[in-house]
Parts: sequence; structure tokens; C-alpha cells
Amino acid sequence: MTTTRAEPQPADFADVRTTNLAVVLRHLRAHGPSSRAAIAASTGLTKATVSSLTGDLIGHRLLRETGPGGNRIGRPATVLALDGSAYASIGIQVAPDQLTALAVDYSGERLLLWHRAAGDSTAEMVGLAQRAAARVRQQGRHVLGLTLAVPGDVDGTGLRDRVAGSLRQKDLAVTVAGHAALAAIAERRHGGWANVAYVSGVAGLDAGLIIDGHPVRGGRLGHLTLGPAGTPALREQAGIAPLVRRALPDLDPAAQADLAPAVEQVAIRARSGDTTALSALKHAGSCLGQGLAALVNLVEPEVIVLGDHFATLAEWLIPAASGELARLAPALGTDLRASTLGLHAAALGGAVSHLDQVDTGRLPDNDR
Amino acid sequence: MTTTRAEPQPADFADVRTTNLAVVLRHLRAHGPSSRAAIAASTGLTKATVSSLTGDLIGHRLLRETGPGGNRIGRPATVLALDGSAYASIGIQVAPDQLTALAVDYSGERLLLWHRAAGDSTAEMVGLAQRAAARVRQQGRHVLGLTLAVPGDVDGTGLRDRVAGSLRQKDLAVTVAGHAALAAIAERRHGGWANVAYVSGVAGLDAGLIIDGHPVRGGRLGHLTLGPAGTPALREQAGIAPLVRRALPDLDPAAQADLAPAVEQVAIRARSGDTTALSALKHAGSCLGQGLAALVNLVEPEVIVLGDHFATLAEWLIPAASGELARLAPALGTDLRASTLGLHAAALGGAVSHLDQVDTGRLPDNDR
Repeated sequence: MTTTRAEPQPADFADVRTTNLAVVLRHLRAHGPSSRAAIAASTGLTKATVSSLTGDLIGHRLLRETGPGGNRIGRPATVLALDGSAYASIGIQVAPDQLTALAVDYSGERLLLWHRAAGDSTAEMVGLAQRAAARVRQQGRHVLGLTLAVPGDVDGTGLRDRVAGSLRQKDLAVTVAGHAALAAIAERRHGGWANVAYVSGVAGLDAGLIIDGHPVRGGRLGHLTLGPAGTPALREQAGIAPLVRRALPDLDPAAQADLAPAVEQVAIRARSGDTTALSALKHAGSCLGQGLAALVNLVEPEVIVLGDHFATLAEWLIPAASGELARLAPALGTDLRASTLGLHAAALGGAVSHLDQVDTGRLPDNDR
Repeated sequence: MTTTRAEPQPADFADVRTTNLAVVLRHLRAHGPSSRAAIAASTGLTKATVSSLTGDLIGHRLLRETGPGGNRIGRPATVLALDGSAYASIGIQVAPDQLTALAVDYSGERLLLWHRAAGDSTAEMVGLAQRAAARVRQQGRHVLGLTLAVPGDVDGTGLRDRVAGSLRQKDLAVTVAGHAALAAIAERRHGGWANVAYVSGVAGLDAGLIIDGHPVRGGRLGHLTLGPAGTPALREQAGIAPLVRRALPDLDPAAQADLAPAVEQVAIRARSGDTTALSALKHAGSCLGQGLAALVNLVEPEVIVLGDHFATLAEWLIPAASGELARLAPALGTDLRASTLGLHAAALGGAVSHLDQVDTGRLPDNDR
């Protein structure tokens, strides 16, 4: 991909059509149901081109006609809308404490959200993926793809080959990517940002980076070491697991390891004014802010979204982190906020990443 | 630009031609003089398309025919080469201690390189730019553009408007960008890297970042603060001016401020084993390495190029910096090396940035 974006490839008329299919799909994604005339007026494409493109998209069951629009004068124009019914896309989020399966249709509507308290064995991932794929296919849907969201340090290629090799459905396109990178893709679609960083704490401490609209590699936020030799890495200072250990010293290790309820407990104690929890949150927030200041100085995201477990604790983390951001990256007005996508944003990102592929105009080949 | 890359724009057949013009120009840039048949074979474009594209490029005087190629059997094929003669592009590098003007022709050959020991007043920039533009126009060349390379903290828009407003040649397209960002563009063209960071010390401490082949904003390396409150920013630890002050404590401030000769003096003393110079270099190299480790963990460049004054001192800085990189960003095999483009890489980057524009297939309109 790097090379493709760096070096131009020969183009032909098919590429023009692909680009214009993308323009129409993005218009409907952004503006909702529209008439052919409205699409033409807004995109600058001719009505004839729009009719040809939308005909192709209706043929692929990506669009459907939804009858007369709102304009009262003259013959009512037929309105086109994204058609969710024919396609599904699946994301599987793999965390140390649980597996999550999430599927959406092409219009972005959620089809299923399953949680399994489980380990991260390949067999368990494969089992959950197979059940999710079977369910949406029972609904008569073509599966655009299956993406596994894994901790940043997992060998994606090896896992993809193992999972693809074990799946009953050999025709499923399997992708593997990091939690934070996929969650950032979900935030890009949700918020429409071209430059966004998503901070994930479901496994260690990672940042998913979207720069100029494109996901980029890196984001090993937890690996930053902000001090002289001997200073622990940021994941030891601002990661969720060490935060839980500091905030809930009385909790036994097994309970601490079950992150979601432990994080809820931290929030409950902080709300009740527990000084141990509050000082642990202040320490984690300050350290996180120092790491985010480095991120802001180096790549200047418009928005930093505190995701998953960090979002649960955002009301205490953001004040401490903002103070460090203001001290260390002044004059760069980065918006620091909590994610609204919940604990399974990576699963959502894995699912919508396949919708994004279609939205680039590369229409699915589902042998209709 | 962000939006353009994030959101597809309607395409037409002109875009296909633009893309294919870019493919032909990039081929000749990368492979040197080639026959039409060789271009077709290598790019996958048809011979008819290549003939039409090259005809257009010859008409714009971007290509010229250079007579028979090397193939011995049958009628010798005419060979096409990039034609430098019709166009020039100018970069002006603005540093506290001197102004540099550099111009290249379209084939990348250097046309002029002027240094002025001067301040950074707009009047002096304008004077130098006017003389450089007048010189290449006397040679009958169309000027593709003029780019000012300035310290990272300069307000580019304000400066561009002042300079464009003061220039005698009102038709000159003026751009302003940071030293490091432009030097990174020069390194991308020189080394062909899609992911490269250029470290510049001509004014403070900045990194120019190319990610997936595209320049991105940010790179405020000198603003990183790698430690608790009270720790000085990285530019105070690893910048060239503080390094000179530590390495040459006996030098008077005026001599220290003249960076190029002072840096040469540091190199001479280090080579002679001067312990003060060597320990200053070791300190700066280690701090630089800690900052580069943050950069590597966050955006994983393939190559980090120590540029301008850092290149002069690379033989002492790289060992210290590599040690910190290995400690803080293990398992990420980033290549740390010295630039070979000298002290005016930013001026070169400013000039070649306009060649890059033409290489995307947007042919200059020089009212022939």
C-alpha cells in the first residue's frame, strides 16, 4: 500500500468509474437518502453519469429506491438510500479477558454484538467467527469480510493464516489488525476526522493513528519512555492494568485482571472520593498527558479520543492529562475527549473497515 | 489537501490522462532515458497511449528525443529523456545566519547555488529571490515556483504574502514551508523512501516527516520534553546551538552564533580527542536518541536521516543515539544515517517540490 500511494499506477476509464462510484456512496453515507438530481447537484457529476452509477449500485444491491422524496412541486423524485440488506461485515475483538463479535450491515446498522468471557485461543476465535458468519448468512447476506482486532504486539500474519485455515467458511476474507488502529477507523467514520488518534487500554497502551484520512503504522504509545535510563515505559505508568493495581490495592490479582469490572470499581470509588483511587487516576492521567504531548508535537492530531477503559475513567484522566498537554504542547489546540463508542470500538472498526473498502468504489463481487 | 485525500473528488477522463502522464514522468525520472516501447512495456500502458502522452510532454518541453537507443537489431528506437532546458524551480533557505538560493532545472540539474551571509529580513529574501528568478529567466526558462524554507515556528502565510507582495515578478508562485519538511522532500527524491524522517538543526530542532510517501505536519522534535516537570525541552539538550555552547565553552557568543564554522570547529576538536567536545557530543547524541526513539515508536520511519549540522557531527552523534534507540525502541529496525545533501537540503527540497508537482502529471501552463 505504501508503494501504491507513493508511486502512481497506470489509470484507465475503470478507475474513473470506481472513483465516481465512491463519490456517490460517500455522498449518501454523509447526507442520507437523496434524489439522483440532488446527488448530481452536490457532487458535480452529470445527471446521466449519476443515473448510470446508481444503476450499477442498485444492481449490486448497495442502494435501493425508497419512493418519492420531500419536494412538493411537480413529479416527486425517487429517492435513493444505502441498502443494508444484502451485505454484512464482521469484527472480532480479541482481548485477554474476553472475545467480542460485532457485525454490521452495509448501511452501518448493527446486526449482532456477542461477548464471550474466554481466553484468546485460536480455536475460540474461530468458533465465534464461524457462528457470527453463519448467523448473517442465514439472513441471506453476503459477508464482505472478517477482521480480527488483536493486541498491538500480536503477529497478525501468523494469526490470520491460522484462523483462515481453521474456518469452516473457506471463502471468508480474513484480516488481522491492532485494536487501536481499528478503533481509530471506527472513530474516523463516526466523527469524520482526517487526523485522529485513538488511545486504547484493552491490552497494554496503544494509539491508533489516522493521518490525512489514512491509517498509519506505529502508535506504540505504551513503549514511550519519558525520562532517564531506569524510567519505566509509559504502559507501566498510564496503562489500565497498573492503574487498577494502584487504585484498588485491596483487590486480589484475579479480580484486578478482569479489567472491565475492575475499571467500573475504580470509577465508583473515585466518585465516592476515595483518595487512593483519585491519586492513582491523577498519576495515570499526568503520565498519559506527557505521552500524548509527544504525540501532539510529532503528528498534531486534531482530536485525541480516549477509548475503551480510558473513556470510562475520562472525567478524572482528562483534567490531569490536559494540564500536561497545555504545559508540554502549548499552542497546538488538540481536542482531548472521551470516546462514545464503548469497549468494543475495535470490533466495530474491524467491521466497518470492509464498508470503507466498498465506499472507495471497489464493489463486492458476490456472484449474484 | 487533507480533505482531498480523505474524501474522493469526482473524476473524469482528464484525471486518467493526468495519472498516466505522471506514470510516464516517474518512469523516466527513475529509469533514465527510455524508448516509447520500453516505457509501454514497463508501465503497462499501450504503445498508442504512450505515444500520445509523450507527444504531449514533448509539446510542453518536459521531454526531448535523444536519438537512437542502444538496441542493435532492426531500426533503432528513438530514446526519450527528461528535458531540463525549459523550466527552473527555486528554493530559498532562510536561516538566522545566512540565506541560500538554489535553483534546479526540470531534470533536477542544479542551475545555481548562492549563499548570502545575511539576516532574515523580508527585504533580503525578496532581493535574493528576485535575482535568482531573473537569472534563470535570462536563460529562457519558465519558473515553476519559488519556495521559502523557514524555521518551523515562522508564520508561513504571513511571510508568503509579504514576499509575494514585494516581488518584482508578480507572476511567481510563492510557497513557504519549514526547513525540515522541505529537506525531507529532498531526501524522499534522493533516496526513494516512502517513510523517512529528516532531522534538521539549522534553526532549533525539527523533524520533517514523510509517511506513506506523503509529507505530514508535525515533527516538532525539539518541543519534546522527556522527563518530569522542570526537564528542559529536547532542543535545549540536543539542538545544535546548545551543543556548540557545551562543546566550545571558550568560544565567544558571536562566534558560537555563526553555526556552520562553529560546528566545523566542534568536529575538529572531537577528531583531536578533545574531551569537552566529545562529552558534549555524547550528551546531545543520547538525548537526540531518546527523542528519536519516541518518533520511532509513534510513526516507525524506515530511515531517519541526520541532516545539515547533525550530518557534520554524525560520526559522534550516531553511536550515542543508536544506543538509546536500541534501548527504547528495540525490534524496530529503523536505519539511522547521515544526510549526504549538505547544509542546503531545505533549499533543494523547496526547489524540487515544484518538480514533484509536475511529476504528478499536472503540466505547467507556461503560455508557450
